[in-house]
Amino acid sequence: MRYSSIPSAQLVVQHCKAKKIKNIVISPGSRNAPLTIDFSEDPYFKCFSIVDERSAAFFALGIAQQLHEPVAVVCTSGSALLNYYPAVAEAFYSGIPLVVISADRPIYKIDVGDGQTIRQDNVFDRHIGYSANLKQDVSHAVQRVEKYKPEWLSNGDNETAQQSIKDYNDKELNTALNVALQVKLPIHINIPFEEPLYDTITEPTLKALIVPVQNVNDTDAIDYKKYADIWNTSNKKMVLVGVNPPSAVVQKFLDALATDPSVIVMTETTSNLHHPNFFASIDSIVAPIEKSVEPKELFCKLQPQVLLTFGGLVVSKKIKAFLRDYKPEHHWHIDKLKAFNTFFSLTHHFKTDVNNFFGNLMKFTVPQKSDYFKYWNNKRLQYEAKRENYINEIEFSDMLAFDRILKSIPKNYQVQLANSSTVRYAQLFNLDPSLGIFCNRGTSGIDGSTSTAVGAAFYRATPTLLITGDISFFYDSNGLWNNYIRPDFRIIVINNDGGGIFRILPGQEETDNFATFFETAHDRNVEHLSTQFGFEYVVVNELTSLNDRLKDFYALSEKPKILEVHTPRFMNNKILLGYFDFISSR
Amino acid sequence: MRYSSIPSAQLVVQHCKAKKIKNIVISPGSRNAPLTIDFSEDPYFKCFSIVDERSAAFFALGIAQQLHEPVAVVCTSGSALLNYYPAVAEAFYSGIPLVVISADRPIYKIDVGDGQTIRQDNVFDRHIGYSANLKQDVSHAVQRVEKYKPEWLSNGDNETAQQSIKDYNDKELNTALNVALQVKLPIHINIPFEEPLYDTITEPTLKALIVPVQNVNDTDAIDYKKYADIWNTSNKKMVLVGVNPPSAVVQKFLDALATDPSVIVMTETTSNLHHPNFFASIDSIVAPIEKSVEPKELFCKLQPQVLLTFGGLVVSKKIKAFLRDYKPEHHWHIDKLKAFNTFFSLTHHFKTDVNNFFGNLMKFTVPQKSDYFKYWNNKRLQYEAKRENYINEIEFSDMLAFDRILKSIPKNYQVQLANSSTVRYAQLFNLDPSLGIFCNRGTSGIDGSTSTAVGAAFYRATPTLLITGDISFFYDSNGLWNNYIRPDFRIIVINNDGGGIFRILPGQEETDNFATFFETAHDRNVEHLSTQFGFEYVVVNELTSLNDRLKDFYALSEKPKILEVHTPRFMNNKILLGYFDFISSR
Repeated sequence: MRYSSIPSAQLVVQHCKAKKIKNIVISPGSRNAPLTIDFSEDPYFKCFSIVDERSAAFFALGIAQQLHEPVAVVCTSGSALLNYYPAVAEAFYSGIPLVVISADRPIYKIDVGDGQTIRQDNVFDRHIGYSANLKQDVSHAVQRVEKYKPEWLSNGDNETAQQSIKDYNDKELNTALNVALQVKLPIHINIPFEEPLYDTITEPTLKALIVPVQNVNDTDAIDYKKYADIWNTSNKKMVLVGVNPPSAVVQKFLDALATDPSVIVMTETTSNLHHPNFFASIDSIVAPIEKSVEPKELFCKLQPQVLLTFGGLVVSKKIKAFLRDYKPEHHWHIDKLKAFNTFFSLTHHFKTDVNNFFGNLMKFTVPQKSDYFKYWNNKRLQYEAKRENYINEIEFSDMLAFDRILKSIPKNYQVQLANSSTVRYAQLFNLDPSLGIFCNRGTSGIDGSTSTAVGAAFYRATPTLLITGDISFFYDSNGLWNNYIRPDFRIIVINNDGGGIFRILPGQEETDNFATFFETAHDRNVEHLSTQFGFEYVVVNELTSLNDRLKDFYALSEKPKILEVHTPRFMNNKILLGYFDFISSR
Repeated sequence: MRYSSIPSAQLVVQHCKAKKIKNIVISPGSRNAPLTIDFSEDPYFKCFSIVDERSAAFFALGIAQQLHEPVAVVCTSGSALLNYYPAVAEAFYSGIPLVVISADRPIYKIDVGDGQTIRQDNVFDRHIGYSANLKQDVSHAVQRVEKYKPEWLSNGDNETAQQSIKDYNDKELNTALNVALQVKLPIHINIPFEEPLYDTITEPTLKALIVPVQNVNDTDAIDYKKYADIWNTSNKKMVLVGVNPPSAVVQKFLDALATDPSVIVMTETTSNLHHPNFFASIDSIVAPIEKSVEPKELFCKLQPQVLLTFGGLVVSKKIKAFLRDYKPEHHWHIDKLKAFNTFFSLTHHFKTDVNNFFGNLMKFTVPQKSDYFKYWNNKRLQYEAKRENYINEIEFSDMLAFDRILKSIPKNYQVQLANSSTVRYAQLFNLDPSLGIFCNRGTSGIDGSTSTAVGAAFYRATPTLLITGDISFFYDSNGLWNNYIRPDFRIIVINNDGGGIFRILPGQEETDNFATFFETAHDRNVEHLSTQFGFEYVVVNELTSLNDRLKDFYALSEKPKILEVHTPRFMNNKILLGYFDFISSR
């Protein structure tokens, strides 16, 4: 095996290996050659090559999202690194340990007019778990540079100096990678390399000193009895679940919640939690209240005494607005690491995992008499019936297409939803419990949905379907510039000729300025991109052919497939808004 | 005319208008609706709509590069803003006043789990001239939010509070925009908006207080006589010019430099300076020295006593390496604003403009007897003759294609060069003096060359040709997702099936790892993208058809055109390296 002759490059790679970071997404460059050589030569690592760093980072994020482990991205110096930022921010707010490793120029070449040179250290400092700014090896500095005379050179003791730099880099690498592993945040390792960059040797120069990651123990000694008393004396309890991976919660706890008359469980598609008694379309409950004659009365009826939340970010704006206006007495959030005060009423953060929490709390809790569940469940059954009626009556549109598409997905598929119309439409329907549903809700950007989906599909036991809108799809078209797309990968693009979501917002009129600057109307289709990237391409623009094409869309194929669904630009918003009117009517 | 009902949105737009920022590049979103409404309703502004913020910012940078004035980009909250960063860094190092305006959520919604919400204030702080973090209007805060109770709300005097916020925002806006105008750096204005975002009124609520920009006067009282004495007593003076706009230097000064026997003027294509006596291919001078038997002797002969530089970043790595090893006694840099110590030998920064400097210095200077110019000019004439011979002998390749393409460009065209092979190849040839040559050399990224070129073409009196490699072109393919491409816009893509530049680097072998992780070899062509974006498409893969197709490539057409030139992946590097061997041989 070959190793880069640069000791600190070896060190970075040894630390990654020691911390079991197997997946490395490399973007091409010269400055990062020492890292590329060491990662790609060692068969321990699975290395991916992706050119566009923006896409590369989202691809890595997709892998990390599925494996629940750190994944590294490696890039050269200069603006390459900045293209990682959208995915870094998504990782920061989604709690995904993206490990950014950037090769840098030697420090004396920064801000002197050298090419591909920027201020890389700490560049993500607003959205990063830890920034490790490594130091350059003495040996290379000494060999190459007269001008660069740091203090440690003056005494001439290069060996001591190199050891102290190695110690420093070891310390920083341990800290950074342990943050990624423990705190599940993105981290940034920046490392300056002097030329020559391509020299190799057959034995590593040094051996990393590894500090093992410490398991975070539940620090709180939680007095569950005390909280169970509150729980048992409250007859309106709401459980609201944000982004949550499939199979994360033991079913008996869910069953207990689902059958307590004083509890309603509000889920989103991204919660990946299912029970016939759960409320899977939050907006279909809240919208009719907003539209009612006496919203205040109904909102007070819905207002929980205890709000229990877990998981990541919540999609529904309506539930956030409601809970901020009608605050619960108690808002408890369960998460080992962090708790957002989303409703400005957080009273306790349970720093433990969800199953542990329920296992302990439920030792003391008993179902409470209450009509809370029953009352709202009737509302739910009403809107579900009305939804069926409405769907049967409407014309071909985004909404009808989503209904048919969501019903068509084979069992056990992974479904990746793009932002924002797609994930919002999906919330209106009940999805098959065997599906795993994912969406980048950390920053809710449209900048990386496709790349994330391709990465998330890579190791998955079952196939993946990405559902996306036209704007998200075109935005991240480099997501398909990728040699790792599985033949069973499927994309459905709902193409409504622009950002149809803006038509749903208040105050819009049919003006040129609206079409140009908000909707960004266009008449592109995805055929050329499909062909370019070796996808089979199917297109429909009405219901019969949609139904027809969906039949064999998921069948095994040699190539991945794209189904483009054209929906009527001027109708979609009317039909969606009409849905809320319809379920709100008596 | 309609105005957003949000006072601070009006304020931002009034400030931009007062500072004559006419060009506004808007990316779609809801949070920025107040700004979009005010900019797009006022016919003073030319508004552009571009979806992908990465591309939008480079497009704006292209306009600013040409007009030498600030251009604004406007985006919604969340990760949208982060996609601007590559262009912000390019602007920072190229001295281009890109004005970033980001709509933000109210401060109390940051880090509480709201959608599309990140930490936007100061997010570019490593690479920005000024960050103005504006404050939210009181009126909106009061109307909407109970929870959000800053100090000024407690006394109930909202009018005073609003006035103090308006004063603060005025001050910040004046500072930020005046930095953009005076210091020619990118700036960032972040502004939180509360809902409702789409409400409009017919008269503006307030009037901005404008602080006019102060002209920067030459602060130094420069003792030109003193420097002229040094100049006059040095018989080896080198003038080296980085990125420099066309027509920036008065010809009589150039003529004087060109005819002084003690002066050699080293230019690059991006210097946009021409004289038959100038040295237009730096590497063709330096490479033969490196390859000679006694490089040290020749380098000493070339080593200047006075090095005079102006303009932006220098492309040639060889001249940088040479001048760092063979330092001049005096390195003078002329620039009103800044001086990079590129060669670690800067002795004086003349804070004035170039013509002013030469006008003053040349009052005292006289041509010096010296064989400096003559000796090196002979070398130049030799390599130019050899280059002609070499070109006549080589097979079809990148180098031959560049020779023919560069000779084919009609007079007065703007030529935008992508990074990095393209701009490096262009340095090897003498270009027609009527051409204006541009390249993003601030960070030398491949992330925005196409978008920049499209923007730079927009207002130009003459047509624009973009020459790019395949990797740069695919990277920034969203640069063509743009409604502002002129029909006379031309693109030539040199497609050598990957990052051919890596083949030129030392230590490469023909391994799978090399092809995958360095060269990122592929077999894509640009036909699908051409069709997708409404370009005429022409493809060639040998010399006769290249010559043939170039004949009518520049003719007027209804659609813009792309010429794809396939060159032989495994030959290009050999032919380029062979060139340097050939001109170095006796």
